[in-house]
Amino acid sequence: MKLYDYAPSCNCYKVRLLLAQLGLEYERVPIDIFAGETLTDQYARVNPARTTPVLQTDDGRFLPDSSAILMYLAHGTPFVPDDPFLRAQVVRWLIYEQTAVVMMIGGLRFRLQTERLRPDDPGAGRRQAAGVAVLSVLDRHLTDHPFFVGDRYSIADIAIYGYTHVADEAGFDLEPHPGLRSWLERVALQPGYIEDVEPYPANSKPPVSRSIYD
Amino acid sequence: MKLYDYAPSCNCYKVRLLLAQLGLEYERVPIDIFAGETLTDQYARVNPARTTPVLQTDDGRFLPDSSAILMYLAHGTPFVPDDPFLRAQVVRWLIYEQTAVVMMIGGLRFRLQTERLRPDDPGAGRRQAAGVAVLSVLDRHLTDHPFFVGDRYSIADIAIYGYTHVADEAGFDLEPHPGLRSWLERVALQPGYIEDVEPYPANSKPPVSRSIYD
Repeated sequence: MKLYDYAPSCNCYKVRLLLAQLGLEYERVPIDIFAGETLTDQYARVNPARTTPVLQTDDGRFLPDSSAILMYLAHGTPFVPDDPFLRAQVVRWLIYEQTAVVMMIGGLRFRLQTERLRPDDPGAGRRQAAGVAVLSVLDRHLTDHPFFVGDRYSIADIAIYGYTHVADEAGFDLEPHPGLRSWLERVALQPGYIEDVEPYPANSKPPVSRSIYD
Repeated sequence: MKLYDYAPSCNCYKVRLLLAQLGLEYERVPIDIFAGETLTDQYARVNPARTTPVLQTDDGRFLPDSSAILMYLAHGTPFVPDDPFLRAQVVRWLIYEQTAVVMMIGGLRFRLQTERLRPDDPGAGRRQAAGVAVLSVLDRHLTDHPFFVGDRYSIADIAIYGYTHVADEAGFDLEPHPGLRSWLERVALQPGYIEDVEPYPANSKPPVSRSIYD
């Protein structure tokens, strides 16, 4: 297997985390997004939508999108429940992660860390307020449950861990969210856990006016 | 089974469509969103997030979110592939539907039909442009494929059909998207097909200034 991968992206990190916990061998293909490496004709054959991560299976098929890759790799393992009701709950949290966590927390981290927004810009304030609401939803669930689905660690936790564990890089304070903080500690204690997210490099800072990202 | 359901919502319609195609009996529990029926203490026990649809299983468990309900109901049927790679592709399209189709096309339909935006408002123009990009992504895929995953009708089609089949109610013209138009016709020919989406009623029009929805 090959993973087309960008080290500072937590969408990519989620897949690396599951691959490590499954003990699977794979070739990591680093894609320098800001050097234009997703914009080549070659990359269009990997993923016409030009996003990372993309998994290439042993028989050469390409699978984009972190949630889809997690679901594929976890099939038949303890990282996704067999029970249809619990598996549907996993899908529900995977979608909440993509529509709320990535949008608000991942999006703000990207804009602040790559200097597309400053913390005092209005666009940052709006995302900050929406992100606090998202963190509160997660915290409320984790006050009553050790993990997101069926009281055991699954790809729902891996997906949500991706951007919440670096929420401080988006300017969020986790002090008011004790359920979330305990859960972050529980995830980091899981067998095979790794954390190898890299900071955004110098070439990620835009040459253009920041205002278009507001 | 019970379905907590709002007739003008296409998220709810997706579930009704699959239930009809599976030939399953269920009790429909109409929830008048704009009369405040999702805001009661009773509804908080059905779904703390206060959204529709929610499926209540025969043994009394509650499952919110259309994509999760589709995945649950389709388990073990021809409406979701057994193959892990193809099922991951279904997850990928379910997420694209929630992050792009619902956001741009469903969101604009809601705002126009309930008079929270006028077609010439800036917020409508932004969503219109983003919605055209989404329709183009779908059309491009459907130019080469009869359905979204594995060349056969699945819950990925049902999910995406929900809001695309009423894209005209959001002001979109499907004339430039022949692949999408052919697929809409193919879906409507599937066994057990129903279409029972109702228009937004009078109580959906807001008493407050439209500007907060821009």
